[in-house]
Amino acid sequence: MSAPHDTQTETVAASRRDFLRFSALGLAAGAAVAACGGPGNAESAAAPAAAAPAAGGMPHPDTNHTGGTIGAHPRTPQQVRAAADAMDAHHEAGIKSFPAKTQGKGNQKMEPRIENGVKVFELTAAAQKWETEPGKFVDAFAYNGQVPGPQIWVKEGERVRIVVKNNLEQSTAVHFHGVEVPNDQDGVPFITQPPIKPGETYTYEFTAPNPGSHMYHSHHNAAEQVGKGLLGAFIIEPREKRAIENVDVDYVMIINDGSHGYTINGKGFPATEPIVAKLGQKLRVRFMNEGMMIHPMHLHGMHMTVIDKDGWPQPQPWKCDTINVAPGERWDVIVNCNNPGTWAFHCHILPHAEMPNGMFGMVTALVVQP
Amino acid sequence: MSAPHDTQTETVAASRRDFLRFSALGLAAGAAVAACGGPGNAESAAAPAAAAPAAGGMPHPDTNHTGGTIGAHPRTPQQVRAAADAMDAHHEAGIKSFPAKTQGKGNQKMEPRIENGVKVFELTAAAQKWETEPGKFVDAFAYNGQVPGPQIWVKEGERVRIVVKNNLEQSTAVHFHGVEVPNDQDGVPFITQPPIKPGETYTYEFTAPNPGSHMYHSHHNAAEQVGKGLLGAFIIEPREKRAIENVDVDYVMIINDGSHGYTINGKGFPATEPIVAKLGQKLRVRFMNEGMMIHPMHLHGMHMTVIDKDGWPQPQPWKCDTINVAPGERWDVIVNCNNPGTWAFHCHILPHAEMPNGMFGMVTALVVQP
Amino acid sequence: MSAPHDTQTETVAASRRDFLRFSALGLAAGAAVAACGGPGNAESAAAPAAAAPAAGGMPHPDTNHTGGTIGAHPRTPQQVRAAADAMDAHHEAGIKSFPAKTQGKGNQKMEPRIENGVKVFELTAAAQKWETEPGKFVDAFAYNGQVPGPQIWVKEGERVRIVVKNNLEQSTAVHFHGVEVPNDQDGVPFITQPPIKPGETYTYEFTAPNPGSHMYHSHHNAAEQVGKGLLGAFIIEPREKRAIENVDVDYVMIINDGSHGYTINGKGFPATEPIVAKLGQKLRVRFMNEGMMIHPMHLHGMHMTVIDKDGWPQPQPWKCDTINVAPGERWDVIVNCNNPGTWAFHCHILPHAEMPNGMFGMVTALVVQP
Repeated sequence: MSAPHDTQTETVAASRRDFLRFSALGLAAGAAVAACGGPGNAESAAAPAAAAPAAGGMPHPDTNHTGGTIGAHPRTPQQVRAAADAMDAHHEAGIKSFPAKTQGKGNQKMEPRIENGVKVFELTAAAQKWETEPGKFVDAFAYNGQVPGPQIWVKEGERVRIVVKNNLEQSTAVHFHGVEVPNDQDGVPFITQPPIKPGETYTYEFTAPNPGSHMYHSHHNAAEQVGKGLLGAFIIEPREKRAIENVDVDYVMIINDGSHGYTINGKGFPATEPIVAKLGQKLRVRFMNEGMMIHPMHLHGMHMTVIDKDGWPQPQPWKCDTINVAPGERWDVIVNCNNPGTWAFHCHILPHAEMPNGMFGMVTALVVQP
Repeated sequence: MSAPHDTQTETVAASRRDFLRFSALGLAAGAAVAACGGPGNAESAAAPAAAAPAAGGMPHPDTNHTGGTIGAHPRTPQQVRAAADAMDAHHEAGIKSFPAKTQGKGNQKMEPRIENGVKVFELTAAAQKWETEPGKFVDAFAYNGQVPGPQIWVKEGERVRIVVKNNLEQSTAVHFHGVEVPNDQDGVPFITQPPIKPGETYTYEFTAPNPGSHMYHSHHNAAEQVGKGLLGAFIIEPREKRAIENVDVDYVMIINDGSHGYTINGKGFPATEPIVAKLGQKLRVRFMNEGMMIHPMHLHGMHMTVIDKDGWPQPQPWKCDTINVAPGERWDVIVNCNNPGTWAFHCHILPHAEMPNGMFGMVTALVVQP
Repeated sequence: MSAPHDTQTETVAASRRDFLRFSALGLAAGAAVAACGGPGNAESAAAPAAAAPAAGGMPHPDTNHTGGTIGAHPRTPQQVRAAADAMDAHHEAGIKSFPAKTQGKGNQKMEPRIENGVKVFELTAAAQKWETEPGKFVDAFAYNGQVPGPQIWVKEGERVRIVVKNNLEQSTAVHFHGVEVPNDQDGVPFITQPPIKPGETYTYEFTAPNPGSHMYHSHHNAAEQVGKGLLGAFIIEPREKRAIENVDVDYVMIINDGSHGYTINGKGFPATEPIVAKLGQKLRVRFMNEGMMIHPMHLHGMHMTVIDKDGWPQPQPWKCDTINVAPGERWDVIVNCNNPGTWAFHCHILPHAEMPNGMFGMVTALVVQP
């Protein structure tokens, strides 16, 4: 197989073009099935195009999206249809804009420099604005301008140095979550090190121990600092891969839910990134939760085979379509991309994924190209 | 074994009579043990019957149910006992009324009609009032007048057609959660189909793929539509059953927590339905969560053997007495009903199950008849 | 192996002395590594001691701990550093005070008396004040003056009698959660017994059935009574231990989150109790959740091997560093204490573990002594 993160990079570049092409194809295919006597509905197919949403407007919860409360304000069929069309137009506009462009992209693979055989990664923590969805800018703390911070990939047994520059106006420290480092590299101020004061630089160094999907994040005033973005994936590739790890697309999905809203890799729908694979390919998703809430992530159309928990192999792989991911947990799953189409992929706590005016937050899509 | 849903239907019809008979028996048995020198307490047995609750009254949280806050308002033993009796009378009244009658019953097995070898199920979505517990009517969206909607049972490999009529005043769509359908049958408006407008009818059709305990529900404005009741069980029976699936009672338990309160199969205690089995029988419970919160469901008296997650067999069955069910998840368990009696069965997030004036919400009972 | 609870008692007595000695050692070791060319940072090491916090003061969220909001109130480097020092001083003070002394200690092993071969445990429920962290006294309901109530340990097959005296000002009852007792010993008022009125005594008796980590707690007005402290560990040791159960330290960790705040064994950090083991020892942690929220418990530095769920062996042990514990669940894990140092051990829902002025709540430490 090719390197998984190279594949991911390709994927990302191609994603918007592929999504739009494929989404249209999906609808066309549906129409074709309807035409040849299969499912689908002529009446629906003949429905007029949804009305454009009024400028800046969304259906008012008390009037337009009740779906008909018994005994309350009867409306004519025309009024009902107009209200439904107005709501649906918001839904359609959201989906058609996916993946929407925003400033900033987090969770990008970081290239280390090599010094005397040591892989050196430099992280600078600083405050900045971050655009989570088009036009929504939030107060963020970022590593290297990214939320989540850049992905760090190393191999089991490699020597690793992490140089942390603190450009925040408060102290910080970096904890390597799940990585079994020596105690003095654990990143907990006043237990294993002094805090890194504003303006200071601090260096961590260790030999990459237990392989798997881990994380790095602040462990100082962490409810605020992690909530605002000081987090990232820390992946230790094993010396020897298991056969099941030979995948075509390897995707890190970090979910969060703090002051940035419900996000996947730092963005809310429709600014989230679709995952793209070709029919027959194998996809690995590395779920990581850096939030304050548990999120049951649900994939449509195909099941997931769970292989690892917190970087450790499960005794035997097991299958599901909804994987419950708690803060601090990592779950690695394999998807055999054998069902072509554009598939919703979202948190199944529905208020984290849809409002009356459409999907938002923890929603993305898996696009399986035929 | 007999057909599991037939057994369930029998069960339901017998449930109130059985529960009352058995509950009384349980208390009588306890008294007998006390009398023959075993556990139980003569002082308690001699306690006067609890005072009837005052009309419409319940113990005030600040005065009667503190259990004695240090230094606050000392009360005489008589006052203390009167307050305890008043609180207990509410508890007793709730339990004695179980299972309480309400209008409407959801989650009933639906008989399809057969057209050219295709199993056809018709679902009509409409707004209505729904009685979740005696006298509590909530705004609901129902399929065929039921919350949850009717159970759909098909066999792996059968051709299935679902005809959806939308009598709501907003658009809708139906997603078959966990069912690996072709993309254009996936029920996500603007990704896989147009929304079903008010008054329209839309048809889904597919060959039943991966067997197991699945669900169907709205995937349009779903936080509201599913929260109000547009959901139901979609069960695909396997071509060949595993030995462990040969059960005497097969029970679908859908939990929810939206604007209808904490419910099991659309009702809150004491209007929930007891599950009834005979001593020595095997019970399968298919837990499904359509809510917004995770609920750890706890069975008293016997353990549960977990066999399936989201319709997929676990690599090996495993045992527990509390199963954590997240939104979108399904967990199938087997209970060997080898401990006779009436056993509480409830969410162990206690504020979902009990208030100062007694049990409510996500509480039911498993009655094992000797 | 020696008896696990004896070991635990030793552990507790030694804990504060060991923690302080070891924590200092950890910092010294870090400095040593820095000096010999390894990681660590000279600039940080030279940082002045943190300023003492102002009397009663903590950094104001809007001014001192923003970490630098873009465009808001620029501060001089001196002001920034002073604010960081003030915040850090709070963090340091919290950690240096750990384990802080408070009145009352819960979760202590209870010695039964033996009557005709029956192990008799007496529990008295009463209201009292409880100090969860230094100076914070909350309204509690306690068994025998302890929150959690005393640990009850029996062996599979032993006859057990539990005599419950109710000194509360409301009725109560005791449920043996996870223990497969006969129905009339199940502790659910009006289903399996009458409530135990204020002033009354009630006796439970049964032969200890299924071994494992179980619990006992109130099952009457339980959201209040359990929330205030009427809960404890009920552990049934198996007739024959599995090899994996031969541990050096056996620790019961009960988490709770009601009106007492986020607690571990009835206390919030820094009043929580460190767990102490020697390098190379095996530790068993028996997690039990008696709260209303799910808590993903995360151990630094070493992984946990999960062996039991709700007292039942998992089909195969599996590894993790974050274990999601839902209300009513018990999870037993083994830690091979092979990484020396003081390791944070906390709920990874960060607002349950850290505030801007430092760690609090569901935080403790595992101290592995070299």
